[in-house]
Amino acid sequence: MKPIVGITMGDPCGIGPEITIKALLRRSVYDTCRPLVVGSADVLRQAAAIVDARVTVRPVVCVAQAAFEPGVIDIIDQGGVNMNTLQLGVVQAQGGYAAFLAVRKAIELAMDAEIDVTVTGPLNKEALHLAGYHFSGHTEMYEHFTRTRDCAMMLVGEGLRVVHVSTHVALREACERCKRERVLRVIRLADEACRALGIENPRVAVAGLNPHAGENGLFGREEIEEIAPAVAEAVNEGIHAEGPFPPDTVFSRARGGLYDIVVAQYHDQGHIPLKVVGFQMDVQSGKWKTVTGVNITLGLPIIRTSVDHGTAFDQAGKGTASEESLLNAIDYGVRLARARPAFRGGAQ
Amino acid sequence: MKPIVGITMGDPCGIGPEITIKALLRRSVYDTCRPLVVGSADVLRQAAAIVDARVTVRPVVCVAQAAFEPGVIDIIDQGGVNMNTLQLGVVQAQGGYAAFLAVRKAIELAMDAEIDVTVTGPLNKEALHLAGYHFSGHTEMYEHFTRTRDCAMMLVGEGLRVVHVSTHVALREACERCKRERVLRVIRLADEACRALGIENPRVAVAGLNPHAGENGLFGREEIEEIAPAVAEAVNEGIHAEGPFPPDTVFSRARGGLYDIVVAQYHDQGHIPLKVVGFQMDVQSGKWKTVTGVNITLGLPIIRTSVDHGTAFDQAGKGTASEESLLNAIDYGVRLARARPAFRGGAQ
Repeated sequence: MKPIVGITMGDPCGIGPEITIKALLRRSVYDTCRPLVVGSADVLRQAAAIVDARVTVRPVVCVAQAAFEPGVIDIIDQGGVNMNTLQLGVVQAQGGYAAFLAVRKAIELAMDAEIDVTVTGPLNKEALHLAGYHFSGHTEMYEHFTRTRDCAMMLVGEGLRVVHVSTHVALREACERCKRERVLRVIRLADEACRALGIENPRVAVAGLNPHAGENGLFGREEIEEIAPAVAEAVNEGIHAEGPFPPDTVFSRARGGLYDIVVAQYHDQGHIPLKVVGFQMDVQSGKWKTVTGVNITLGLPIIRTSVDHGTAFDQAGKGTASEESLLNAIDYGVRLARARPAFRGGAQ
Repeated sequence: MKPIVGITMGDPCGIGPEITIKALLRRSVYDTCRPLVVGSADVLRQAAAIVDARVTVRPVVCVAQAAFEPGVIDIIDQGGVNMNTLQLGVVQAQGGYAAFLAVRKAIELAMDAEIDVTVTGPLNKEALHLAGYHFSGHTEMYEHFTRTRDCAMMLVGEGLRVVHVSTHVALREACERCKRERVLRVIRLADEACRALGIENPRVAVAGLNPHAGENGLFGREEIEEIAPAVAEAVNEGIHAEGPFPPDTVFSRARGGLYDIVVAQYHDQGHIPLKVVGFQMDVQSGKWKTVTGVNITLGLPIIRTSVDHGTAFDQAGKGTASEESLLNAIDYGVRLARARPAFRGGAQ
């Protein structure tokens, strides 16, 4: 049986519902998995109209009711939206509320093994806060509702896989978080993730924190005191880890095929190389032309993949947003589900 | 008259001499400028043999003696090398010494207006230190010998121009250096550099320091307290500056043509996007296949452009290193020289 994939629609005021419809118009998605949406059926119907899609949106009360047939989109309807007051492209409390309900429900379904994979659409942090939920993002919600700590964000795209030692913290704080234990944990997670993706003996490159990886202590000592010892310990454990490497060339080495994955020490060190290649602008319109990449949370008891772009409020309601990143996220979720020892051909 | 370009050969144990020969084999170089080398004639002759070039290396004692003819490479011979003990691919004090002599002489020639442009080949910091010169790189030598402060490093390549608020300091120190005055100075230098390259009303994008540009103060306050005020002041001065932008997408915006130049807050923020695109590896050999990009020092009284790669000791003596970056550096130096009000068709 194919894995069951629960897709959260994201903030209803953003592009999430539209790209969900566009992705589920692809018959190929149903060839590899059994997809259903978690969110508001009203919002999804509106999105289908926006993208001019001939699909039926069918609310189901439980996963067992879903038929997973192309042309009929099953949705676990969480409501939470007043269509009379909902405004596309605007930060609203109800947008954050509806997005929250969908994510919490998807996590619950995965924890109960009713679905195999969760794939998340983009939400808006400000809307989430307006709705009274003070999480700094999806990852913190997943950690909270799965009672997990020490997760790591992995980004995949354009021939690169990157896992981050820290993400949504100030750069000063990111320097503080570059500690031996955390770096070692992230190296282990990187190694595991590659194995789950079918790579037999993953080669893990570890970036330094400082320019030129500190140039032998000349520009910072984290490489000597924290990163190198973590790499040495990982090697002792049998992991093929190398580094710390100068951050400005390690990604070219990985893209060239010398490494399967890079451990980045902070958010932008890992995000910049992926996005500079994967995000392309259309000069005429000033809008994103191509947005590829998948965001995967490592270290959770369940599978979570995600688009790696935001709600793009300025494009909401136009039907023009690209579903590419969402398709990538579904694809990666399916691959990870099939690699799980617990996967016995679907949760049902 | 064409600008006179002084090219320093870099560390004699690295690839500098070889790429200098390879670049000066191109007749097109002599079409746009009058090039001469500053360094050791013995080393340059050895490099010519390594790359199997049919050229004459002709030592001159002053610029007035140079003939600037293709096939005959003029060199201001600085000596400093014992060919019997020089070892290619090895960090040696004499390598650092010879590299130092060439750079100091090139700066002197430019300060005396005997040459219009200085273009530097790669040197090795460790060798420089072994020779007793405790500069952290070229930029510091230029600041010292030209009695200048507050320079900024600009990188150019692959459709991107980037200027850095700080470079060779630990990441913690880079956070400290993100200050209103310095950011403003670098915005001004970015604007001036673009104008010198012929861009009439340069659009300057300023990156944030923190992920998501701090997300309204949630992940750091440098954007609010230092960067935004600097941008506002630059706008007041008539500069078309915008930002602070999230660091992970600002480079895609600039590559897409929305901005002419990006102000990066620290070394790797600016170096990663350029190198991930401009540096490509050959998987078979594990060597760099393509290395493009130019490094320009802004804020000096003279022109200095440079290759943006290192000495590549592991490739020295093989004749295989790419001269592309050096050709780019010569080209940019010539463009900057022609834009100088003081340029009256050559220094002579």
